[in-house]
This record gives sequence, C-alpha cells and structure tokens, in this order.
Amino acid sequence: MPGIFLTIEGPDGGGKTSQVQLLAAQLEKRGIHYIKTREPGGTAISDKIRELLLNPDSKDMDSKTEALLYAASRAQLVAEVIRPALQKGYVVICDRYMDASIAYQGALGLHHDDVRMINEFATDCLRPDRTYLLDIRPEEGLKRIQRAKRAEFCGDLDRIEQRALAYHNRVREQFLRIAKERGSQYVVLDGEQPKDIVAESIWSDFSTFLN
Amino acid sequence: MPGIFLTIEGPDGGGKTSQVQLLAAQLEKRGIHYIKTREPGGTAISDKIRELLLNPDSKDMDSKTEALLYAASRAQLVAEVIRPALQKGYVVICDRYMDASIAYQGALGLHHDDVRMINEFATDCLRPDRTYLLDIRPEEGLKRIQRAKRAEFCGDLDRIEQRALAYHNRVREQFLRIAKERGSQYVVLDGEQPKDIVAESIWSDFSTFLN
Repeated sequence: MPGIFLTIEGPDGGGKTSQVQLLAAQLEKRGIHYIKTREPGGTAISDKIRELLLNPDSKDMDSKTEALLYAASRAQLVAEVIRPALQKGYVVICDRYMDASIAYQGALGLHHDDVRMINEFATDCLRPDRTYLLDIRPEEGLKRIQRAKRAEFCGDLDRIEQRALAYHNRVREQFLRIAKERGSQYVVLDGEQPKDIVAESIWSDFSTFLN
Repeated sequence: MPGIFLTIEGPDGGGKTSQVQLLAAQLEKRGIHYIKTREPGGTAISDKIRELLLNPDSKDMDSKTEALLYAASRAQLVAEVIRPALQKGYVVICDRYMDASIAYQGALGLHHDDVRMINEFATDCLRPDRTYLLDIRPEEGLKRIQRAKRAEFCGDLDRIEQRALAYHNRVREQFLRIAKERGSQYVVLDGEQPKDIVAESIWSDFSTFLN
C-alpha cells in the first residue's frame, strides 16, 4: 500500500495540534503505521530554521525572506521525513504544510503564485492526499492561544501570532479561498466546535482511505 | 547619481575577499560613497542563516534546502542593505551574489532555471551592473584556502569547501557558462595572477562607470 499524506491547516488557535494527536491515537489503536510531524520544524535543520522564524527578535525579517525560510524548512522535512515515510507505506500527518505558506505569506502581500512556485520547487510538487482545514474566527483563535500560553506559563505570543487581527483575518480568507480552489483535496471543518465532534468528522472522512 | 551595484564571483580561493578590500580602498581614497558586504550574511538574520549553511554539522542538508536558505539570506540582504544603499547613490560591492547560487547549487544537480527563479523572487530581479569573475583552477583555489586557514589557526574547511574536487570543477564550469550567457555584465579575470594585476584590471573597468 502506498502511504497516505494528510495535512491539517487553518488559522492559529483552531485546534490543529489536538486533532493531530486525536487522529494519531486512532491510528495507533488500529495498528496503522504512521508518523506525525509539524511545520516549521520536524528535522534538526528545520528546527533551527523554526527558531529563526518564530523568534520575536527577527522583527525586521523581509516577507520574502520569511517565505523562503518556510520553504527551506519544508524542503528538508519532505526529503528527510515525509517522502521516506510515504515510500514505506506510512500514514503521514503533518501539522501545517505548503498551503500555510500561501495563506500566511500571501496575507503579507506576496503573490500566491510566487509562494506556490517556490514551494513546488521545495517539495518537488508533493501534494497531500487530504487536507483538513480547521476554520476559526481569528479573534477566537488568538484568545484560545493566549489562554493556553498563560496556563502553561510559556510566555508571550511568537512573532507571527503577534501580528494584528486584520492580518489574521486575511490569513483566514486565504485559507478559505485555497480550500475552494483545491476542491476535493480539502475538508473544511468548524474549529469552534468541541474537539470530539471535529475529531469524529476527520475520522469519518479518513476512514474512506482504508476501504 | 543612481548607485552602482558590483559583485565579485568565482570559485573558492580566487581572491574575492582581497579584491573587495582593494576596490574599497580605491573608492575610499577618492571619497566615493560605498558599502561592501558579503554573502551569505551581511545582516543579523542573514548571518544566522550563514551559520546554518556553513556548519559542518548540517551535512544532511538537502540541496533544495540549501538553495532556499541562500535565497532567504539574499532576500534579507537586498531588502535591508543593498537596495537602500543603491537608492542613496552608493557603490555597493558584494562578495558573491545570485550567480554563486546558480553555480554552486547547479553543480549539486539542481536545474539552473529553478535556482534562478527562486533568486529572482528573492531579489525582485535586482541584477548587478557589473560582475567580476575571478577564475581559478579549483585544485589551486582550495590549496590557497587551506594554506590561509592553517596560517590563521582557524581550523577546518567549511561544509561547502569540504566537497570533492569534481564538485568544485563543476562549479567553475557553471561560472564560466553564466559569464558567457550574461555577456557584458561580466568581466572574467584570471584569479591566479598577482593580486595587484587583478586589482588594476578591476579598477580600469570600474572607472568607465565614473565618466
């Protein structure tokens, strides 16, 4: 069996990390081989790029530098982790992928065709089999993140989270636009619903791959 | 007067750093405003990318990751340093630029059109007014670098320098191919000549911009 490549996308605070864990738990229970990873990061080199991207000291970073660093981190993750796992027939669950770049850097004013082009170079055009978009209003998403960070005493918002609400609204619009454009690759879910409901919808869709 | 953008390219050990210094000294003497910079690096963010690129621990870096990191470092340098200086009418001397990526990453097997494309994105198609290519046989260039590093007790070759001689030969061929292709943008000089002779040739060509 060839592997199955799943990505989870959406604005910050939509519950992506929880859904990756819930889906992984389901696969575990059924003895299905899988790996989960996240972006930016997931390899030693990509984690160093992640540090640079999310560090609030990098505030003078040009938007093109940002887009290229995300693409660099992604190229390494695809070459070192995702492609080898798919070749072994694993399910790969990735928390954010190429479309996150198109949404986030597109919302900075870069043209989405340019961002897509450098990411197609980075990934050799590797596309997910399915993407779950956890849609959430940014004001609600950012509230959730702030609450979680306070609870864990892990400090301030990162450089991307710190951007204004208007920016995060544009990110959300970009995600919805991409979902429409990509058609059946995407399943759009309401990230403001309880976690278990969202998890059930994801599992019910994912099961179709197993038949 | 608009600025003048000069780049110095060529295989390792061809004397680029010395020629940047000698040219800068000439400009200084004549009271011409200039800045000199180098790649990868030249800004706080680009210097962090440089560390990652040249660190021998990054040996598992994918060639596409490498190309994207060079482009990211370049995007930041252009936005933060090169364009503002050119807008102020300065002469900008840059030790390596876009064509170094096409030569070095092209020699890793990436297609030069792909590398060019991501670099045109990174720089908004900013091209040098003149490029001085210091051509040298790689076996001679690498010998010079090893000698210099021993003299300065600064240790081993970096990750790129450590690659095999066959690789450095391909890099040289790529540079000569690009020079031919770009026509009058390029002045090709024999980097095995004494430094002063090379510096005179560069100054004699550069002077034409001042008339």
